[in-house]
Amino acid sequence: MKLRFTKMHGAGNDFIVIDATREPVELPPERWQALADRHYGIGADQILIVGKPNDPANDFSYRIVNSDGSEVEHCGNGARAFMHFVTAKGLTTKRRVSVEIMPGLITLEMDAAGAVTAGMGVPVLDAARVPFDAAGLVSRREGELDRWPLDLGAGRTAEIGVVSMGNPHAVLRVDDVDTAPVTTDGPVVENHPRFPRRTNVGFVQVVDEHHIRLRVWERGAGETLACGTGACGAVVAAILAGWVKSPVRIAARGGELSVAWAGPGSVAYLGGPTAIVFEGEVEI
Amino acid sequence: MKLRFTKMHGAGNDFIVIDATREPVELPPERWQALADRHYGIGADQILIVGKPNDPANDFSYRIVNSDGSEVEHCGNGARAFMHFVTAKGLTTKRRVSVEIMPGLITLEMDAAGAVTAGMGVPVLDAARVPFDAAGLVSRREGELDRWPLDLGAGRTAEIGVVSMGNPHAVLRVDDVDTAPVTTDGPVVENHPRFPRRTNVGFVQVVDEHHIRLRVWERGAGETLACGTGACGAVVAAILAGWVKSPVRIAARGGELSVAWAGPGSVAYLGGPTAIVFEGEVEI
Repeated sequence: MKLRFTKMHGAGNDFIVIDATREPVELPPERWQALADRHYGIGADQILIVGKPNDPANDFSYRIVNSDGSEVEHCGNGARAFMHFVTAKGLTTKRRVSVEIMPGLITLEMDAAGAVTAGMGVPVLDAARVPFDAAGLVSRREGELDRWPLDLGAGRTAEIGVVSMGNPHAVLRVDDVDTAPVTTDGPVVENHPRFPRRTNVGFVQVVDEHHIRLRVWERGAGETLACGTGACGAVVAAILAGWVKSPVRIAARGGELSVAWAGPGSVAYLGGPTAIVFEGEVEI
Repeated sequence: MKLRFTKMHGAGNDFIVIDATREPVELPPERWQALADRHYGIGADQILIVGKPNDPANDFSYRIVNSDGSEVEHCGNGARAFMHFVTAKGLTTKRRVSVEIMPGLITLEMDAAGAVTAGMGVPVLDAARVPFDAAGLVSRREGELDRWPLDLGAGRTAEIGVVSMGNPHAVLRVDDVDTAPVTTDGPVVENHPRFPRRTNVGFVQVVDEHHIRLRVWERGAGETLACGTGACGAVVAAILAGWVKSPVRIAARGGELSVAWAGPGSVAYLGGPTAIVFEGEVEI
């Protein structure tokens, strides 16, 4: 069977996008993993599967599969690429669509210039719901942010903030993202027993009050060039801690993103570039 | 302009293959580099550009562009993928083709089962022609192989054999490729001043007399899953040193290759699997 796909990226965070609105595309996790492989397959951080909505009041549904074959809840850059895709493919003529994803609904909006802003939902700030197991830990309060001491083993402790954007994020502040221990501490925090569903890990360097630099260790994907929910999680934590103010420009490895957030109880919005890279057809 | 391409791999060494037999495809190095990028482009170790022969007595010509945009002389896995491509695309019905490449002619042969063996030319064993500058160095002779002490800086020395397969190879013997310093010593040897055209670097672990394990640091590409000329260079050096005997099975990171070589003055032959991964079209 031939599977048509489109390869896209949003600030370097790259996606295989599949139109399953006419017929469902179901593959076992190891086949998705093989398609995402950069040498033996097509290569991507994630696979986006565009489907029909379950509730006809909405426009679409979509599923996101990580490069390790696991399914994830939300990916902001993927959501923005999603909007670009459904517009480019003529699947909608709307400028604003509502999309069913695993944890709920998201709203995507394209401006006249084609830039897409994704409503990323209301950040979850309650540690237990991230989920993060804080039992027995004492936090240091910075602004409105609890910063938790996380035991990394070998006598080392990292101070983290925790936020859920539909998926969990641990946020660490560093002096310089270029020298931050992303590839060493990243997997330790990702798989730490206090994160029962594992976690994404953001390393934040504050440049000024509207500008951060960010590197993200993504759950199940390793370090990626840009992570949309990671950018939101990092900015939400940084705003709560009083390090920065909305809106915040994020220099990620793959390009520039922006996040606007009005504070607890409000939806966070992610903006930034997206591009269609190429069209392809693969035997599955 | 739309550019049609085919994505292939040979033992995990992956290629964008372009049919330029009808009209030439010329792009500046930075555009090739962008196409080879794994996040912003199509992604590949190398780009193979299939052309018409200059001499009508031959079947094809082809050019190989590295992921850094530089042009390279020969790539054995690329050559095998090349044969698979011209057969699959109906560009030839021959089982044996002669192909013009930058340093000369190669012969490719497909057996009835579709496995492709590439004649990789006669290895060049003279250090000066690799080119390797041995001025002032004293080699340790092992079998028929000169092993040269190469200063790595900080008081460290590596013992290397040098072979050219149309491109230069430095071959180091290690006890265990899994723990070999491929990503640290690889770039140091690659860019060592004694290799005026830089070099590929092979790390060889001898399993038994017909079996090696191999990791290759490729010039301009970093560590790759499999390197055809690297496999040949490593086996030629290993046979000369008396470590192994022809034919030799090579467990590379991306899969299994085989090399047969009858000794100095003979052509080396590379065998192994190839696969078409997908078809695509990109705007250039």
